[in-house]
Amino acid sequence: MIPVEEALMRVLGALSPVSAETVALPEAWGRVLARPVAARLSQPPADVSAMDGYAVRAADATEGARLALIGAAPAGHPFEGEVGFGQAVRIFTGGFVPRGADGILLQEDAERSGDSVLVRETVRAGRWIRAAGLDFREGESLLQPGRALSARDVGLAAAANHPWLTVHRRPTVGILATGDEIVLPGEPLPRGSIVSSNAHALAALVRAGGGQPVVLPVARDSAEALADTVGAAARCDILVTSGGASVGEHDLVRSALAPHGFAQDFWRIAMRPGKPLIWGRLGEVPLLGLPGNPVSALVCGILFLLPALRRLSGLERCETPLTRAATATALPANDGRQDYLRARVEQVEGELPRVEVFARQDSSMLQLLAAASALVIRAPHAEALPAGAEVRMIELGNLGI
Amino acid sequence: MIPVEEALMRVLGALSPVSAETVALPEAWGRVLARPVAARLSQPPADVSAMDGYAVRAADATEGARLALIGAAPAGHPFEGEVGFGQAVRIFTGGFVPRGADGILLQEDAERSGDSVLVRETVRAGRWIRAAGLDFREGESLLQPGRALSARDVGLAAAANHPWLTVHRRPTVGILATGDEIVLPGEPLPRGSIVSSNAHALAALVRAGGGQPVVLPVARDSAEALADTVGAAARCDILVTSGGASVGEHDLVRSALAPHGFAQDFWRIAMRPGKPLIWGRLGEVPLLGLPGNPVSALVCGILFLLPALRRLSGLERCETPLTRAATATALPANDGRQDYLRARVEQVEGELPRVEVFARQDSSMLQLLAAASALVIRAPHAEALPAGAEVRMIELGNLGI
Repeated sequence: MIPVEEALMRVLGALSPVSAETVALPEAWGRVLARPVAARLSQPPADVSAMDGYAVRAADATEGARLALIGAAPAGHPFEGEVGFGQAVRIFTGGFVPRGADGILLQEDAERSGDSVLVRETVRAGRWIRAAGLDFREGESLLQPGRALSARDVGLAAAANHPWLTVHRRPTVGILATGDEIVLPGEPLPRGSIVSSNAHALAALVRAGGGQPVVLPVARDSAEALADTVGAAARCDILVTSGGASVGEHDLVRSALAPHGFAQDFWRIAMRPGKPLIWGRLGEVPLLGLPGNPVSALVCGILFLLPALRRLSGLERCETPLTRAATATALPANDGRQDYLRARVEQVEGELPRVEVFARQDSSMLQLLAAASALVIRAPHAEALPAGAEVRMIELGNLGI
Repeated sequence: MIPVEEALMRVLGALSPVSAETVALPEAWGRVLARPVAARLSQPPADVSAMDGYAVRAADATEGARLALIGAAPAGHPFEGEVGFGQAVRIFTGGFVPRGADGILLQEDAERSGDSVLVRETVRAGRWIRAAGLDFREGESLLQPGRALSARDVGLAAAANHPWLTVHRRPTVGILATGDEIVLPGEPLPRGSIVSSNAHALAALVRAGGGQPVVLPVARDSAEALADTVGAAARCDILVTSGGASVGEHDLVRSALAPHGFAQDFWRIAMRPGKPLIWGRLGEVPLLGLPGNPVSALVCGILFLLPALRRLSGLERCETPLTRAATATALPANDGRQDYLRARVEQVEGELPRVEVFARQDSSMLQLLAAASALVIRAPHAEALPAGAEVRMIELGNLGI
C-alpha cells in the first residue's frame, strides 16, 4: 500500500495536457486557456471622459468663466474639431476628449444657457480624463495559458478584440462499470442485481471537472467483456473503470487487460474508503481503476480523478484546495490508512467553521455521502483529537461534486 | 438611492422559480431539483456480505470447526439454497447472504481444502453483514427540491433507480447591449467605437449561474432600436440590458421602453461601482438594467443577476456567501455608497486569509477586475481600518465568474 500523496504524484506525473482547439468566445467560459491572450487594441482607444460634462481647456475654465459651446462628443461620435480658447464641447462618459481640451467640467459644476456654459467650479487639467491605454495597451499580455476562463476573463478577451480563443480540448474520459450484478436505472432488475450508480455519478464528476464523459456499455465479469473495451479506450484521454474485483478470487480488470497491453503502476493505496485503486496504462491510455463500492468510487474520484482531469485540461494548479475547521466531536486515533470522513460543515461567525463528522462511516452508505458537505482528512496514525480541535477538510459544496 | 440589501430584496421578491422539465439522469448534474426523489427500492436490496469470505451459521463457525462448502454466492448470482448446520457458502462483497446463514467467515480467517473450510477465528452473528435497506429503504425520501444536484446526488438518484429526474428549466436570460459606440469583437471598428465586452461577459455569468443566455443584437442608442427588443424580451424569463444611459441627457432604456409597458421599481443604488442600476418589469418580464461600464456591469451582475438566477432556478438559497479575511493594507473611511473593492486573496496557514485591496479602483479597468480573486465590501460610512483588520468579501474564484 502506498500513501495517498505518493499515489497522486504518480498519477499526475504520468499525465500531460491534452491538445488545443479554437472556439468562439462564448464557448470559452470555464475552459482552460491554451494560448496567451494579448490586447489587439488599447483600451480606452483614446483619452476619454470619465463623466458627463464639458471638454474644456483647463486654463480657461476657472470659476465664473463663460465658455462657448461648439459641439458635442457622445460616446461613439467623436467631435472632430478642436476646442479653442474659451470654448467647450459637450461630452458624455466614454466620449473621446477632443483635440485642444485637457479637462472635464462636470455637468453639475456647469450652468448652461443656450450656446454658452458658465463654469461654477474651476477645472483641473487631466481631471476626469481616462488616458488612452489606462486599462490595457495594444500588445500587452492579458491572460496566460493554464487559466480556467471566468466570466470576467471572457469580458477582458472580448474587450481586447478576440472573437476566438484557443483552449485545451475537454479531456475525453471513458467510464466503464463492470460487474455481473449491475444494471442501469430503470432497466429490468433480476434478483441479485444492484442498480448501477457509479457510471453516471462518475460521468457527472467528469463534467464537474471540465471533462467529456463517454459512458461505455456495462461490462460483465468476464475477460472477454473487458477485452472488448480496449478499442473504445484507445479513443479516450483516460479510461476509468469501476468494480471488477467482485469475483474476489482475482482482480479481473488487471488480469483481463494484461494480454491487451495493460501495464500496472500501483494498485493499493493506504486510504479509507477506497483501498483497491488501480493505476496504470492500457497501451497508450492511462487507466484509473476505481473500487466498485459507490462511496469508495466517488471519494477516489474526488481524490484522484478530479486532479487528473485538471492536469489533462492544462490547468496550472491540479490540487484540490484544503480548508480548515474545528471538529464538533472528539475523533479517535487512526490506524495506518488515511481516512476521509463524511461530515457536515457549518459556518460560525468570527471563528473557524465547525465540522460535524457523521457517526456512521460505512462505505456502502451513498445517502450519507450525498448529504455530506466535506470530507475530513485523518492522516495515518493521527492521534485522537478532542472536540474543538482543528482538522483539515475537502469542502464539497463548491465543486459540483 | 437605495441600499444594496434593500435592492436585492426587491429583486428577489419580484421573482419566482421557472417551470420544470424532465431530463435524463445524465443531464441532471448541476440542475436544480424540482420534484423530490424517493427510493424506488431498498439498498442493499437484501442482507449482503460486506467482505469476501464464507456465509455460515455463526453457532457452527467456532475456531477449529470444519464446514462443508456447498456453493458460491458472488455478487449478482445469489445462492438459492439454504446454509444448514455445518455448512458454508463462498461469498463475495455485495453477494446476498443465503438463507440460513447469519455471519461471514472472513477469507483471511478461513483455510479451504477441497470442499471443506477450516474456521480459524470464531464468527460473530451479524458481523460483516450489511442489512437490507442500510443505505436507504424503498419509499424513503432522498433528495429534496431546491437542491443543485451534485455528482453524488446523481449517483444517489441512480442507485434509487431513477432514469429520469424533474428539474427546473434553465432560466432564459435575454442580454441586450446598447450603445452607438459598441461593436462586437472582430467586427469593423470605426473611430470612436469600443469593442463590446458586456454582452458576452454577462452571457458567461449567466452560464455560471445555471441560466441559458440569449444574446440579442446590439441596439443602437435610439428609442426605435430599443423598442425592437420588446418582442424578443417577451420570450425570456428575465431581460438584462447594459448601457443605454450613454446619451447622458436622459436615460434611454427607461424612456424608450416606457411606451411598451415598462414599469420601473427603482433605478439608483448606493453602491460603487454601479450606481445607475434599473429594476422593473417590461410587461410581464423582469428587467435588470445594468450600467454600460464593463466593471460596473459585471459587479452588479455578481451582486444582483446571480442571486436573481438562483431564485429563478428554484434554488433554496439565493445569497452569495460572504467570507472573512484580514486586510493587508489600511483602508480609508467610506462615504455613503457601499464599496466593492477589487482585491486579491492569499491563504495563510493557521490564520484568516489575507486580502490585498488593489491600489487602483478605477471602474473602467477590466483587467484589474479579471485579476481580482475577491470583492472586499465596505459598508456606507464604514470607519477607516488599520492593516490586519477583519473585512468581509465575496470570493470570486469558485463561482466561475
